[in-house]
Formats: sequence, structure tokens, C-alpha cells
Amino acid sequence: MSSPLRFALLGTGRIGQVHAASIHRSEDAVLAVASDVFIAGAERTVAQYGGRATSDPLEAIAADDVDAVIIASPTPTHVDLLSAALEAGKPALCEKPIDLDITRVDEIRDRARDAKAPIVLGFNRRFDPHFAELRRRVQAGEIGPLEHLAITSRDPEPPPAEYVAVSGGIFRDMAIHDFDMARSFVPDIVAVTAVGLRQFDSGISGAGDFDAAVTTLLGSRGESIVITNSRHSAYGYDQRLEAFGPGGLLEVPNVTPTLVRASGSTSSSTGEPYRRFFLERYKDAYELELAAFVATIRGESAMQTTSPGFEDGRAALLLADAAEISAREGRTVPVDLT
Amino acid sequence: MSSPLRFALLGTGRIGQVHAASIHRSEDAVLAVASDVFIAGAERTVAQYGGRATSDPLEAIAADDVDAVIIASPTPTHVDLLSAALEAGKPALCEKPIDLDITRVDEIRDRARDAKAPIVLGFNRRFDPHFAELRRRVQAGEIGPLEHLAITSRDPEPPPAEYVAVSGGIFRDMAIHDFDMARSFVPDIVAVTAVGLRQFDSGISGAGDFDAAVTTLLGSRGESIVITNSRHSAYGYDQRLEAFGPGGLLEVPNVTPTLVRASGSTSSSTGEPYRRFFLERYKDAYELELAAFVATIRGESAMQTTSPGFEDGRAALLLADAAEISAREGRTVPVDLT
Amino acid sequence: MSSPLRFALLGTGRIGQVHAASIHRSEDAVLAVASDVFIAGAERTVAQYGGRATSDPLEAIAADDVDAVIIASPTPTHVDLLSAALEAGKPALCEKPIDLDITRVDEIRDRARDAKAPIVLGFNRRFDPHFAELRRRVQAGEIGPLEHLAITSRDPEPPPAEYVAVSGGIFRDMAIHDFDMARSFVPDIVAVTAVGLRQFDSGISGAGDFDAAVTTLLGSRGESIVITNSRHSAYGYDQRLEAFGPGGLLEVPNVTPTLVRASGSTSSSTGEPYRRFFLERYKDAYELELAAFVATIRGESAMQTTSPGFEDGRAALLLADAAEISAREGRTVPVDLT
Amino acid sequence: MSSPLRFALLGTGRIGQVHAASIHRSEDAVLAVASDVFIAGAERTVAQYGGRATSDPLEAIAADDVDAVIIASPTPTHVDLLSAALEAGKPALCEKPIDLDITRVDEIRDRARDAKAPIVLGFNRRFDPHFAELRRRVQAGEIGPLEHLAITSRDPEPPPAEYVAVSGGIFRDMAIHDFDMARSFVPDIVAVTAVGLRQFDSGISGAGDFDAAVTTLLGSRGESIVITNSRHSAYGYDQRLEAFGPGGLLEVPNVTPTLVRASGSTSSSTGEPYRRFFLERYKDAYELELAAFVATIRGESAMQTTSPGFEDGRAALLLADAAEISAREGRTVPVDLT
Repeated sequence: MSSPLRFALLGTGRIGQVHAASIHRSEDAVLAVASDVFIAGAERTVAQYGGRATSDPLEAIAADDVDAVIIASPTPTHVDLLSAALEAGKPALCEKPIDLDITRVDEIRDRARDAKAPIVLGFNRRFDPHFAELRRRVQAGEIGPLEHLAITSRDPEPPPAEYVAVSGGIFRDMAIHDFDMARSFVPDIVAVTAVGLRQFDSGISGAGDFDAAVTTLLGSRGESIVITNSRHSAYGYDQRLEAFGPGGLLEVPNVTPTLVRASGSTSSSTGEPYRRFFLERYKDAYELELAAFVATIRGESAMQTTSPGFEDGRAALLLADAAEISAREGRTVPVDLT
Repeated sequence: MSSPLRFALLGTGRIGQVHAASIHRSEDAVLAVASDVFIAGAERTVAQYGGRATSDPLEAIAADDVDAVIIASPTPTHVDLLSAALEAGKPALCEKPIDLDITRVDEIRDRARDAKAPIVLGFNRRFDPHFAELRRRVQAGEIGPLEHLAITSRDPEPPPAEYVAVSGGIFRDMAIHDFDMARSFVPDIVAVTAVGLRQFDSGISGAGDFDAAVTTLLGSRGESIVITNSRHSAYGYDQRLEAFGPGGLLEVPNVTPTLVRASGSTSSSTGEPYRRFFLERYKDAYELELAAFVATIRGESAMQTTSPGFEDGRAALLLADAAEISAREGRTVPVDLT
Repeated sequence: MSSPLRFALLGTGRIGQVHAASIHRSEDAVLAVASDVFIAGAERTVAQYGGRATSDPLEAIAADDVDAVIIASPTPTHVDLLSAALEAGKPALCEKPIDLDITRVDEIRDRARDAKAPIVLGFNRRFDPHFAELRRRVQAGEIGPLEHLAITSRDPEPPPAEYVAVSGGIFRDMAIHDFDMARSFVPDIVAVTAVGLRQFDSGISGAGDFDAAVTTLLGSRGESIVITNSRHSAYGYDQRLEAFGPGGLLEVPNVTPTLVRASGSTSSSTGEPYRRFFLERYKDAYELELAAFVATIRGESAMQTTSPGFEDGRAALLLADAAEISAREGRTVPVDLT
Repeated sequence: MSSPLRFALLGTGRIGQVHAASIHRSEDAVLAVASDVFIAGAERTVAQYGGRATSDPLEAIAADDVDAVIIASPTPTHVDLLSAALEAGKPALCEKPIDLDITRVDEIRDRARDAKAPIVLGFNRRFDPHFAELRRRVQAGEIGPLEHLAITSRDPEPPPAEYVAVSGGIFRDMAIHDFDMARSFVPDIVAVTAVGLRQFDSGISGAGDFDAAVTTLLGSRGESIVITNSRHSAYGYDQRLEAFGPGGLLEVPNVTPTLVRASGSTSSSTGEPYRRFFLERYKDAYELELAAFVATIRGESAMQTTSPGFEDGRAALLLADAAEISAREGRTVPVDLT
């Protein structure tokens, strides 16, 4: 049994807490340092999970007792912290997006490609056990060559207006997860056709953004992917997949907290509302994402293929940019992700 | 194409109307005569579906333009009308039960066995397309030799007190359908263990009857059948089957009017309440029962095996009698159905 | 009780047989005349269902003993037979499409609008009990104002090459049903964005047509409708609906022949393949379509609103034409259906 | 935040490993000592999860650095180790059954009742999130007073013949979990009617045991509980609940590893086989069982009520004894659990 990897966790907000809990539950990881510019957050985290606290992420990255880094700080800091990890030669798991601006992403592209230590992007949904099993069966040929993928992705409710204003818009902020999910099935996307929608939230519309969207991606072998997004969903987080090929259909429906079903005088076989949001829906995915990161660092190949890398982070952003243009100009936009 | 069979319908109450409509929709049957001691009912029926009306069932049975008879009159008349059909050499479909008293049934047993024309019992549930397909797959060996059958059978609500008083009790009146269903899978039942329950209806309890029951039948090859009955069910008519064998499980869930499902803020994937009662739930079964009766008369063997006969009607009553004794005496009761 | 309406059935091919059987099973309709240029087909039909045979549809339309007409002959004859029915002042149910060429449709548009007798289009799917119930609940406001509709529509297998050649293409031949379904929810469509696909059938591609397509419609209130089409589907006829609004989701899944489910050593809760094709899937819809046509003729308003008319047939063709242009030119196409 | 409780784990076989992993994943527990007469097993366990190893369980129970004990050793040692825990005044979680012989159980009954530290029985299924949620909703009155409970409980395959020989028989070894589940809904059982079955395993039959059984329990308020057991199940571990009352039905179906569903040319909507056996099916339940034990020890009342105690272990054994008699003698057996 190898000794556990020692992690520096950069950022101890909501998503940082998810990673801290995953590290605790893993037998292969321990928390060495938690860093946050708000030092109190870092201190609360290490009180619960062990390790030491710092307000300086660069110190944490460079520390001798740190084997690997998780970047869970605000988006504008990602490129700089990734740079520091590259510099230190430390493996890094970076939350998405790398940046909202493709030019900033491209500034470190070459160094990321040449890095010895793995750079992994936090597209955690790839590790969802349901989606991962569906993908495994598609790749095993169960339905023949994939022809069509339908991704339904609706958040329970819109983010606050102040967040929307700096979010980069529905395609870069929300659909970017779905673009990566699409690429985990069809890496080579050649065209994007998006319809932006203004259906229910005048604040979002007023800010020039869309509150819903339908995006059709075209793969280089003629595959189609339809992504249906909305910023609200009364019944909980709506996260579904359908994969279609000549041999049939594979589906993942939504997840309920338990399997209890009720029948009464006005209805039959009623399930609970779906899991509320990503913390509940993708809890297992975060743990598996960490396990895959550890496996990648250790060179254990079994899981390595499914860890998305820097280029995946860049491609998702390129697709978001193309979707934005397509929706605004009413035309199909060709893309080149290479 | 053969010309349609000409039917006499004896009794034009609720169940008689079901048969009249089935005859209308069939391409192989026409209504020649409808009889009812309340002549107005017979007249309304022929105004809608054709044929002539009479108040005399014996005249209808004997009529030259009648090829076959459906006995849908009150239970106490069944034995006499069956006798008349046997006398006339006419095929007869008799609603269940033959009689509530096994001695009356046994009075015509020999003549029924020797009859040239088919005598068919109205255990319509055998023809339900869902149950029939499950049975076909069991008999085709899909799950290996049947080990266990679970029958859930709950009425939406208790019958009126005056009906309960003359019904013969929960086993003879209600569970008798389930005993026949059990025998359509395991004809040779050797023991009955019943638990009678008084759960919610003081009127039924006060009359000395049970409002719910759990009955375990044992087949001659060690098969078990559990029948769960209740006189009420908030979510509609509860009619389900599970068949278990070494190769797996086959199930029929309840039927909803349509397949629409709803998800909202308090629930997910909610179906409609199940079909209300037997007229809605078993509409198709009544049409298929008629088709099988026609096929039986014409000697078309494909469907013949599934039409229950006089002996099936008698066996179901014997099981009901045994269940009653078992429930009252708290002991397993052996039975001999031969 | 009104006396049954007397029908002339024009065309006794596959779809004509469906209508003949619906007429037989209805208590409100009788077959007076069946016409077919292949007289043998008409004769077989009347031998089974009654009425007289003719090879002359115009004679059938004009006959005194004919109250209403069903046009089930090949598409190129539709406009002429509709004209004759308009001339005779007889109600007509015309199979879709009115014609493949919008100019021919527009030639009789004014006369159709001014007709006294109802002209009804054979968009039978509107009458599917599952879809109709979903629509009723949307219109009753259960999920609030409709925001998104997803229509999945895949045929089990491609038609023969010779048929494809004259079919008008996937949008006019196949998706036209889905365009009408979309309009039964959102009548006022203002833009069409279609992606045509060539995924599996080189014959169809070689003929310049698409074998699959994804079409996004935009309603005048910002509603989105996504239609996913394919010319093949291994698991049977794939016909599903999802309606989404602020209050939640309503869905209709596919239909299996029975509800039997199986669990074995390699799988759990396995259903039968879905109903094979439209004759099985939409059998009830054809009967209800006829019932609504009868109700429309008799002026019974309850069902009248759901019978699609001439303008609906024209609108569906306009949407198909727009989708074709959108797919070929890679741009959103505005439409005006008024 | 309280400091974690320090555990002694007695027994490091299959079920001991489950508890060791639960302790590791908990933020409220640490492993202080693992004991096993096979010292190598204890040593492997502490190498993975921390703590020290011993071959002497009594030393572990008495150790100063041990706050609580988990008894996961073979059944014949349970009473002695429980006695030692009672002696030491340490809280103990004891795997079921307390013993196969009710007289041995009764020897320590008084001391268990008077114990200051909590004694908890390892009926882990009570903590299954699905079953617990169903029970919570029943107790909240959602379906009114419980009338009927159906428990389906089938193991994937029979245990080895040598195990069956010392298992105590199907009722004491296997159904005992179901008796406790029944009592978690209806504590006061007054009668047992069991039918023992010999359906497929001649080894089990040859040893005088049953390989399947149907048991009907009667509650003091007329409630009925049906337990369906089999020693095999082709489709995985079959663990289901149905609760019925005047207000409707609550159900928990079986659990699949993921929610992926497949449709192909021979089937639709096919799920994966159910979770294989108790380690997979009840993994969460073991973690929650530990959490409830910790909460019980700390006097946090929220979860305390659902931790089964010594009397629950005794009652389940009494029901198993009664079922055995009922099945062998073909009669209903009254029971008094007080």
C-alpha cells in the first residue's frame, strides 16, 4: 500500500469544502495545507480535516510536504496558480474554467502541454458513476457507433444577478460542463449551432444574456449532440443523458435522494424531487475525480484516460465562444479544436 | 371468412353491457337476443347494439338464431341457465361463480364434463394481455420452473353492506378470481393457509367477514403462491403479478390510463392513479375472453387452452371454501381438486 | 342516439384499412362505399366491413348515401379529391400531407377556408391518448406557460429507396408530423433552425437527403421546441414528448405492447421492445381521430378544437420547407404561418 | 466539534472489514484497536486504517483508550463479549444474532436492560436510507395507520452446506433480519403463520431445512406483514418493501449499481442487475448504523430511536423460533414478545 498523497487545497469556499471532504474520505490522500486569502476559512478547514492553514497559495504550492495541488479559488486566479504549479512541477487539479478569456488560456498552453506533472481539469461530471458507466458501454460498442447524444442540463434556479454579470454568460458559465460532457463522447466537434432563449428571467435578459439555450454540436463523423439548458428547474437539478446508435439507446435519468415511491388517491408511483444541486448530485463524482487524479499522478493507467486535461478545458471554452456567436448571429459556426 | 356467431346475452346489467360492447366490436360476433327479467334493460341494449329483446332467458337459449350463450345474470340463476344451455347443446360462457354452494355446482358436474358444446367460465383476468403474456413467458420456460407467484389484488373500495351480506365472504366473492389466476399457473394446489384480517371496515367485521386477507397456496411440486387481498385501495384497482423461478422474475405492475408522468417542486415522475376498477382495467380482457370463446366454439386450437372451463370454476370455489376454514381455524387445510 | 354517419373511404391500402377498421369499431359510423383504382382492394374491404365497392372516387364522394369522406389515397391525388369534397359540400378527413408542393396547397386555400363542411387533416398523433392528455395538462396550466417542448421521433427503419426518392425528403415526409405536434402546443412559430445529418444510410445520403435531423423551432413568445428525428431505431418506434415550464415537467415515454417486466442474471426490470410502428403505436389515435371527426361534423364542440384543419396542414408544410432551407444553408430561417 | 470516539473492533473478517471502513470514513470515529484470534487479520486491518492489533478481545474491551466496542466475531462468542462490555460499562454494537439459543440470550437479558452504556444490535437494514425514509413517511402518517407490510428478501445464492448445517435454519439465520424489519414498523407482533418450502436445493432439504418460506405476521392492531424469503435470486439481492394503508402505498424497489438503462432490438429500458449482496446493497446502511451508534452514545436524541437494542435482538429470535414451529406443525403460533 502506497502512503497517501499530501494535498494543498487552494481556496476553502463551497467547492473547496467538497474537495476537503473527499480528501478525508480517501485512503490515498491527506490534507497537508489549506490556503485561503480569508485565513479563517482555511483555519476552519484544517480544524476539521487536519493539516495547516495559510493565506498564501504560492507558499502552499511550493511547500516540501505537498505532493499535489487542488485549485479551488476564484476563476481569475486559476491561470496564475496553474502557472505556479507548473513552475513547481506539482500535479494540479484545476476547477473549471481555466479562464473566461481564451487568450489568457493560450498564454500557458505550451507550458501545460510540456508539463511533466499532470494537469487535470475539474470537469467532475465525467466521473459521475451513472454517466461514466453509460460512456463505458458506448465505448464498448454496445449500441454501435454513436450517432446522437442528448444532454439535458438545467440548474434548479438562476444565480444572483451580480454573479450573472461576471459569469461570462450561459454558454461559458453553465453549458461549458455540457460541452465537456459532449467531448467526452465525441472529442472532435466541427460545428456549433446554438439558439439562445429568453424565457423567464428579465434580469438575465436585461443584462444581454440568455436564460435558456438549445445547442446542436456536429462531430467530424456526422454525430449530433443536442444540449438543452435552462437556468431553472422546479423539480431539482435536471441532469440527463441519452446516447443513440444503430444498436439502440442508453440513458441516464435523474437521481432521487432515495428510491421510495408513493401511490395515493391522486397519483401513482411518485418519486421524490431530484437531487437539489451539484453538491448532492455529484458528491460521488467529486470523490471519484480525486481518485482518478491520484491514479493519474501515480501513473496507474486504468483511470488515467478519463481525467480531462488542459486541452479539454481549452476546447470547452472554444465551444462556448462559438455557441455565443452562433446564438447571436443566427448561423452555424465552424470550429477547429486542434 | 366465417360468418359471425349469433349470441344470446342473458342479463343486461353492468357486466352484460360489457359483453354487449365486446360483441359489437368483434368482427366474429353479433348480438341476436338480449334477455333480462327487466325487459327495459334488454330493450335499451338491442336499441344500441342490434338484435331483439326478451324477458325469457330459456326462450333465448333455445332460439334457432342463437349459436351461443353468455350468462351474465345474477349468481343464483347460473346453474339453471347452464343446465338449459347444456340441454340445448349450446356453447355457454358463464360469469363466475357457478354458484356459492359447492353442492349445487356438483349437481351438474357430470353433465358439464360430458357436454359436447364448450362450457366456459368468465374468469376474464386470464385474458388480460399483460397477465397472459407473463404466463406465456413462464410457460415458455424463461425463468425455469415456477417457484413462487405473488398476486396482489385489492379493490378500490368495499361493496355496499347489503352486497357483502350475500357475497359469500371475501374468499368466495373476491379472492376467487385470484384463486383461478393462481391455478392458471399452478393447476394442482394441495394446501391452503389463509390469514383473515379485520383492518378498516367495522361493517364487514360486524357481519363476521374479513376486509383483507393473506392466503398462501402450496402446489404439488412445492410451488408457493401468496395472494394479498384488501377491500380497499386509495390509488385505484391494485392488480399485480410477480412470478419467480431460478432464472429470474417476471412482473406485471398496475395500469394507468395514460403514460403521462409529471415532475414538479414536490415530486418527480408522478403517474396517474391506476385504472379505477375492473371495467376499465379489464376492458381488453373482456374482448379477448369473447374472442377465445369464439375460437373455442370453432375449434381453433390456438386459444382454446386458455379458456377456463367448468372444472376451473369448481376448483376456485373449493379453494375459497378451504381458505375460509383455514382463516377461521388457524391451520393449513389440505385440498384435493381432482 | 343519432344514426351512424355513412362514410366513403377513398383508398384501401395500408392506411385505408386502418380507417375501415376504425369505422367498424365505432358506434357512430358505417362504411357506405370503399373506392380504389385497384377495385379488388375495395372489394376485399367491403366484404369484411360492409358497404359497396367502386373504382371511381368522384362517384363515391358525390353519392347520396355518403355523409362524409376519408381521403386515404396516394398524396398526388389529395388536392383533387379535396376539391371534389369541397364541391360536394361533404366533410372530408384528408391524410397528410395535403401535397408536397405549397403552391398546389395554396390553390385551394381560399375555398378550404370558406368551406361550410369541415375539412380535417389526418395528423392522427394529436389524438394519441398519451400526448393528448399531456397537452390537456399543459393547457390547464399545470406547469405554467410552456417554455420548452422536446419531441423525439424515430422510425424503426428507413423506407425503401424508391419511396425516399419521391418522399419530399425527411422534413416534408417524416418530420411534418412533428411540426404539427409542435404546433398543437405552440401554433405561432416564428423561426426554424435545422441541422441535417447523414449518419448511417448511404442510399439516402446519395439521393441528397438526410437520414436524421435536429430541428429547433422558436415560438412567438420565446418558446423553444427541439425535434430529434432519425430514420432508424433498433428498439422500435421512438415517439416521445417532454414539456417543460416554470412549474415542472410533463413527459410521455414510449409504449410497450404489454407492461411485463423481466429480471434475470444479466439485467433487471427489462421491458418489451416498444411498439413496432405507427399502426400499432397509434391504433387508438386513429379511432379517436375518427371520433373527433364525427364530433366535428355533428358540431359537438368538446372535441372540435383538437381536430387539425387545412391551415394546420399548410403550416406544417411551410415549416418543413423552412427546415430544408435552414439545414442546407446553415442559418436560422424566419417563418410567417399566417 | 467533539473529538472522535475511539473504537475497539472485535473480529476482522468480512463484516469486520465493513465496520473498519465505516470508521475510517466517519469524522466522528477512529479505530483504536482491532482484535482477532487470527492476529494476522487484525494486523492487516490496522495497517490500513490505523490503531493497534491484538488477539485478545477482552483486553481490547477493557483498554483505557477504547470508548466503544463493535462485536463482529462469530455468533457463539457474542454473549460472552457482550457480557464483558457490560462489565466494562462500554457501549457495544453487536452483530446479529445475539445467539441462536434463546436461553443464552435470556441469561444476560436483565443485565442488558439495566446497562448504563447503550447496547445496540447490528440490524443494519433499519438504517438503509430507502427503507428508513419509507418508515419515516409511514410514521409521519402519510398513508394513515399501517395495514399491510410486504417484505421481499431473497439472497443471491444459498450459503455453503457446511454453513447451513450450523446456521440455525432459514428463519433464525436469514429471515431474522426481516423479522426485525417488520418490528421496526409493527413492534407488537402477536401471531406467526409460516409456510416452509423446499423448492430447489436438495442439500438444504436433505439437512431438514427449508430453502424458501412465506411468513405472515399479525400485529396487535390487526396489521399484517408478509415476508417472502428465498435462498436464491438470479437477478441479485432482492430486498424490497411495500407499506399499505388507507391513504395509499409506499414502496422501495431494488437498487442497481447505476441508473443506466438500455433499449435494443429485443428489449426496452433494461436496468443493470441489482446490487449483488449485502456488502454492496447496504454499504450506506453500515455507515449510518455507525453514525447512529455514535449519536446514541453521545445522547444525541435525533437518531437514537432508530438504533435497535438488545430487546429487539431477542424479539427477532423469538419470532424465528415461532416461525419454525408454525412451518413444521402447519398452524398459527401465538407469540408474546414482552
